Amino acid sequence: MGNQLYNQVLNIHLAAVEETLPKYLPKDDQALQKLLYEIMAYACEAGGKRIRPILTLEFCRVCGGDTARALPFACAIEMVHSYSLVHDDLPCMDNSPVRRGRPSAHAAYGEDMALLAGDALLNRAFEVMLDPANRSGLPSESVLRAAFELADASGAGGMVGGQVIDILYENKPIDIDVLEKLQLGKTAALIEAACVIGCHLAGAGEEKVSAAREYGRQLGLAFQIVDDILDATATAEQLGKPVGSDAEHGKATYVSLLGIEAAEKLAEERTENAIRSLEVFKDKADVLREFTYALLKRKK
Amino acid sequence: MGNQLYNQVLNIHLAAVEETLPKYLPKDDQALQKLLYEIMAYACEAGGKRIRPILTLEFCRVCGGDTARALPFACAIEMVHSYSLVHDDLPCMDNSPVRRGRPSAHAAYGEDMALLAGDALLNRAFEVMLDPANRSGLPSESVLRAAFELADASGAGGMVGGQVIDILYENKPIDIDVLEKLQLGKTAALIEAACVIGCHLAGAGEEKVSAAREYGRQLGLAFQIVDDILDATATAEQLGKPVGSDAEHGKATYVSLLGIEAAEKLAEERTENAIRSLEVFKDKADVLREFTYALLKRKK
Repeated sequence: MGNQLYNQVLNIHLAAVEETLPKYLPKDDQALQKLLYEIMAYACEAGGKRIRPILTLEFCRVCGGDTARALPFACAIEMVHSYSLVHDDLPCMDNSPVRRGRPSAHAAYGEDMALLAGDALLNRAFEVMLDPANRSGLPSESVLRAAFELADASGAGGMVGGQVIDILYENKPIDIDVLEKLQLGKTAALIEAACVIGCHLAGAGEEKVSAAREYGRQLGLAFQIVDDILDATATAEQLGKPVGSDAEHGKATYVSLLGIEAAEKLAEERTENAIRSLEVFKDKADVLREFTYALLKRKK
Repeated sequence: MGNQLYNQVLNIHLAAVEETLPKYLPKDDQALQKLLYEIMAYACEAGGKRIRPILTLEFCRVCGGDTARALPFACAIEMVHSYSLVHDDLPCMDNSPVRRGRPSAHAAYGEDMALLAGDALLNRAFEVMLDPANRSGLPSESVLRAAFELADASGAGGMVGGQVIDILYENKPIDIDVLEKLQLGKTAALIEAACVIGCHLAGAGEEKVSAAREYGRQLGLAFQIVDDILDATATAEQLGKPVGSDAEHGKATYVSLLGIEAAEKLAEERTENAIRSLEVFKDKADVLREFTYALLKRKK
């Protein structure tokens, strides 16, 4: 497949998300809580790669669904991702004053307002998916499955659970099994859900749903390993030290546990696993294949 | 109607909620994040009046529905209420070390874990409502309407919005119109949703849904006024001052704005409004009528 089609498809998805996401956020200049709406928009504004909503739209397209009908769900997933970043940045968590080159939500608006804006964004994801206005033309059962998939992935057994494991093992000895469980929740669960939801909204059968689930899990893990490698490389460059020698900063990473070479090898293996699970979609998944390799090779 | 039937019905609902709520929370002693599960349970443990889930079950019963099928939804509403208390108590919010006579979640488990347990409880509400295992026998459309009702009530336009208004007007001049908007979101929205959801799950028509909505709104506002009166009375007794003279504590209340007598009169009016909106349910709503008066006359 040509690189041109790949770029074209991804750009269409990205443009749709950037255009639609603000529309699914609350807006009312007369509301006494309009500052809350402003913070929610601030937290969702461009800057991220929008990987999750793109995966939802692309899996929907690959399965023959109507991507326009998947947009509210794609945007809901991005809202969950955005809320998790707002809460992650809070002083009692990572205490990050900066996010995507701008002040983090609490640095810009105060801790109480950032907490509530995060709560409201998580909540908004479900408002958007369940709103009758956003689900016309979709079978009720598809909507229920899609919304349950997101709820299941983002909660105590998924993303929040992974964040808790992350905190509990800070400054403690950790092995690769624990790191995998942590990252399956913290990073892979939402990416997996993004893929599966695209299939549900296209009315895909169990075989395709399972394939998308396995793809998302492998991609999610590969994505995190690459993140760790990029972080370690940037830190080593800053400090003028060899890559991988920053393990003392309290949180274990694939690089701190495995070293840079084994981490790179594992990211490649996971990427191959992800690609392999796309077989059921035949050549319809060519854009996904290129996307998967691009994420492995990314430089930031 | 006899007081006996009233007590019997309410006790059945309350026992069902107390028994079922823990079952809908995650439990897995092998999970690395089992501490998270412990905190979620801690935050939901007995001590509250369970007004919201009782309303859901009773409206379901009044509309001829199967209350057993409404239980997951009743418990989901209580989870949203519980999460809101956990986040409200956090240092960046009310900074309350105590909740229901015990250490608040963050006092017991730390601020980061309390934040995440609150997030996980909000999320869990949607997991429970949307889980195929919990919605068998219910029409998909009823489930979607019920879950949307909760999402709509608890988010930026409802409960979280009300909390934001509360913060924005702290230590600022506030009139009764602002206080009403604040309390419609902060307190009444979730109570209103609890009533409406019970009707949806029983497959009730629009007339009954509207009546339940109006009832819940009036009851929610009355409930808050009584809360303010009880708070003001307790504070005045502690300080040995006349009731209503505690307005300097930063947050406006019905008592600080209206005085104790006008507040009592308004609570009675709202209670009468609530009772009036129950007419469509005829004598089936007798338990609700007694419940409504009992909430007006409560001493804590």
